[in-house]
Amino acid sequence: MKVLLIGGCGFIGSHVADCLVEHGIAVRIFDRRLEPFRDPLPRVEYVMGDLTDTAQVFEAMSGVDAVIHLASTTVPSTSNLDPVADIKGNLISAVRLLEMMRATDIRKIVYLSSGGTVYGIPTTDPVAEAHPLNPISSYGIVKVAIENYMQMENHLHGLQPIVLRASNPYGPRQGHGGIQGIIGTHLWRTARGEGVEIWGDGSIVRDFIYVRDLADLCVAALTTDTSGCYNAGSGAGASINDIVDRIRAVTADEPGINFDPVYKPGRSFDVPRVVLDISKARRDFRWAPKVDLKEGIERTWEWVKQTSRAD
Amino acid sequence: MKVLLIGGCGFIGSHVADCLVEHGIAVRIFDRRLEPFRDPLPRVEYVMGDLTDTAQVFEAMSGVDAVIHLASTTVPSTSNLDPVADIKGNLISAVRLLEMMRATDIRKIVYLSSGGTVYGIPTTDPVAEAHPLNPISSYGIVKVAIENYMQMENHLHGLQPIVLRASNPYGPRQGHGGIQGIIGTHLWRTARGEGVEIWGDGSIVRDFIYVRDLADLCVAALTTDTSGCYNAGSGAGASINDIVDRIRAVTADEPGINFDPVYKPGRSFDVPRVVLDISKARRDFRWAPKVDLKEGIERTWEWVKQTSRAD
Repeated sequence: MKVLLIGGCGFIGSHVADCLVEHGIAVRIFDRRLEPFRDPLPRVEYVMGDLTDTAQVFEAMSGVDAVIHLASTTVPSTSNLDPVADIKGNLISAVRLLEMMRATDIRKIVYLSSGGTVYGIPTTDPVAEAHPLNPISSYGIVKVAIENYMQMENHLHGLQPIVLRASNPYGPRQGHGGIQGIIGTHLWRTARGEGVEIWGDGSIVRDFIYVRDLADLCVAALTTDTSGCYNAGSGAGASINDIVDRIRAVTADEPGINFDPVYKPGRSFDVPRVVLDISKARRDFRWAPKVDLKEGIERTWEWVKQTSRAD
Repeated sequence: MKVLLIGGCGFIGSHVADCLVEHGIAVRIFDRRLEPFRDPLPRVEYVMGDLTDTAQVFEAMSGVDAVIHLASTTVPSTSNLDPVADIKGNLISAVRLLEMMRATDIRKIVYLSSGGTVYGIPTTDPVAEAHPLNPISSYGIVKVAIENYMQMENHLHGLQPIVLRASNPYGPRQGHGGIQGIIGTHLWRTARGEGVEIWGDGSIVRDFIYVRDLADLCVAALTTDTSGCYNAGSGAGASINDIVDRIRAVTADEPGINFDPVYKPGRSFDVPRVVLDISKARRDFRWAPKVDLKEGIERTWEWVKQTSRAD
């Protein structure tokens, strides 16, 4: 089996690539640039290109049996600044990808959607897949539209899509741009002696999943003969203040490290609480998250320390 | 009050324009071309332009208090042929319209969505607004995305959108292109002595609403201080064969008219049965459909006969 891994040099993609290689699955990565934190992997093929360039994508699809699509040109917190760019960069490129898959008779796709935005403000806790989709950010609206095009291709043309609605992934190799991923951002800024800011009073609750657990789920989904939508989280909630406490604990004994977040006003698009019900993925993929928040933050901190020293 | 009526020269738009004028509401129509079946209305302002041209739309919005958006560049049966064109022509133009409304502080919009496509294959009968949105055509997917952007603007910026999920409108001034509207298409072709085709065995059931009833609902929604999604149908189901029987009845005594439809294979994107639950619109707008299928088809046939003779 050979897989086209779109976004394979990103944070999540790099772990999915590791996982695919370990499973003996041939990998061709399609991404705009190489991984920032590692050299290219020896047994992986790399194609550099842009997902909005149809010809490049079509060429990259040659000879593959399945696609894993993890790429996004936007993040939830900035998508509303330019929804038209969000639609062009993500929705249209996904629709074109599906058209090319149909033309080349590639049936299987694993697509990374967003459990934190497609449901909007949840009316149940935890949130199961059947919860109404009421997104209140462009990021979430575009993810829902892409999910719907995949369901349409399933219904009309026999595509086998698996949509993974991921919660908040964190772990080694998460970037430090500061626009997505509170755990990575806080650890990086702390390692560099920079201040840390929190939007709101820290009471908002999210479902954080260790990135390798999410990567394992992507590969489990790829190798299972089913289709549909699946929540992809830890199934447990942690508040921002819980994260702050855990980061304080792992950084407390470090010489010269001072972790002291500053609280700022909340953002209107932040949903108060999202915890995913992951029983469907547990059942259908015989998968379970293995790394809890304590261990995951410890591992991430070790990686941040090593990497920031090497900078 | 002054309203910008986008798509006001189309089939539904022409009736909404009549209804607004009767209510003493000032109307500025924005459309690509004038009405095909009538001269311009004396008390209505016409601006010819394209909805994808941001500058033209922005100019047309000057001095209006509310917007009714009825325009679409696609129909359900053809949208899947070019989903990217559907996204560019309808979704992106709607998102830009919302951005301009925010910039000019216009809060009220009535938007015509699609009760026949946003729900996908209904799991309840009739279908209420809370039914899950599982569209299986690009037309429906784009409508859902536009609805979601309107809800987002409501949540983040106080827009007051009313989304009307229309069923199958029919009546005078429906075109005879043959791509949308079985009643109009069949009556036109019959009046011209052309053959009529039916996809499938005629058992599929739809909710047909007389166009003037839908226009009344648009204006009732505009003049009510609420927001949200509303089904806009008759609340009653009729099969294609029911329609055939009624058309046979109204055309039976016409000299030289022969109505004898030919049955062809069904289309994969046709949902077997969609009947809308309209109790929410009845309650919130104190509105009810007034013209039943018998009377509506009689009126439409009279109009088709007169218009085809004048051709």
